[in-house]
Amino acid sequence: MTEYLLPLEQMIEQLGSLPGVGRKTAAKYAFHLLELPAEDLEQFCATLLEGKRRIKTCKFCNNLCQGEVCTICADPKRVNGQICVVEDVKTLMAMERSGGYKGEYHVLGGALSPIDGIGPDQIDVAGLMNRIKNGPQPIKEVIVATNPTVEGETTALYITRLLKDTDILVTRLACGIPVGADLEYADEVTLTRALEGRQSLN
Amino acid sequence: MTEYLLPLEQMIEQLGSLPGVGRKTAAKYAFHLLELPAEDLEQFCATLLEGKRRIKTCKFCNNLCQGEVCTICADPKRVNGQICVVEDVKTLMAMERSGGYKGEYHVLGGALSPIDGIGPDQIDVAGLMNRIKNGPQPIKEVIVATNPTVEGETTALYITRLLKDTDILVTRLACGIPVGADLEYADEVTLTRALEGRQSLN
Repeated sequence: MTEYLLPLEQMIEQLGSLPGVGRKTAAKYAFHLLELPAEDLEQFCATLLEGKRRIKTCKFCNNLCQGEVCTICADPKRVNGQICVVEDVKTLMAMERSGGYKGEYHVLGGALSPIDGIGPDQIDVAGLMNRIKNGPQPIKEVIVATNPTVEGETTALYITRLLKDTDILVTRLACGIPVGADLEYADEVTLTRALEGRQSLN
Repeated sequence: MTEYLLPLEQMIEQLGSLPGVGRKTAAKYAFHLLELPAEDLEQFCATLLEGKRRIKTCKFCNNLCQGEVCTICADPKRVNGQICVVEDVKTLMAMERSGGYKGEYHVLGGALSPIDGIGPDQIDVAGLMNRIKNGPQPIKEVIVATNPTVEGETTALYITRLLKDTDILVTRLACGIPVGADLEYADEVTLTRALEGRQSLN
């Protein structure tokens, strides 16, 4: 392992904290940034800090926004009594890209994971319940779009239990074969879920 | 392509300027940095700016250093009348990793490339000549370790011509088959060069 000058080592260490970046890639980034004119590197850093400063989370749904309320919560056309509950903003954005959903969202900021010390107080279940109870419009359906992992399923179950004495419909995204995939290569769990969720064609 | 909030778009644009980073990776980095506590992101940026501020280039050889002179030029054991000419600091570091070279270096900061407007004035040939003519010790050998590309070969030829009326030995790194490689998969140019550079075994 090459030893660099201390300030360069420190740059490499910081850049190596980016997701999926190892020491070699971090060194490549560090050399690139060192070769930039000083004002370009200052602009680079200023943009990152400015982004962090200006991007807030929506006070209703925790989506990213610039003011207090995100564009989805502020859009009167999206108010239709549906809330789609997601783990993070990336999932929200994936749902938006699909274009198939016209209701509102609620970003939990994680999923229940007792082993990692993440209980109901570490994710924003309280905010979701508050919106359902005290929101301006009645909620008819909560679509739980947490990931199909142990943590995501646990979270879905927890939310379902919290809402069991209401007349709100709680639904979950269908699990099954991805469109375009080959049945031969589907894993057993997915095949089982696809069979359980089979739908009538007539 | 997902459209993000403007400050997030600007973060993604800056991160996408890192070498080999596309939009998706840049977005992954941006989300990671957004999720950091503000003080961690400030530390991240401070380390990059501090590195840029503290790392200078050696006034003799252009290697990276923290003062005016790099550790190699300041090491009296390295003063042996040999200068290894490289295109960039990364090549210098690769040479140092090999451990096989005990002389000094000169970092040109590029290679001659008329098509890109890089002539002898855009790389530090003048500094090299100055060291050879006015340096404290006589130079016996200049090892031209520019890359085996058109630009690198042109640069090697140019330096050889500049030194043709001196009694300095000008050498070039051997081109040939990489150690451990299979001859079957070597390209024609490398094979030809390896044949031309064949060495007697007896």
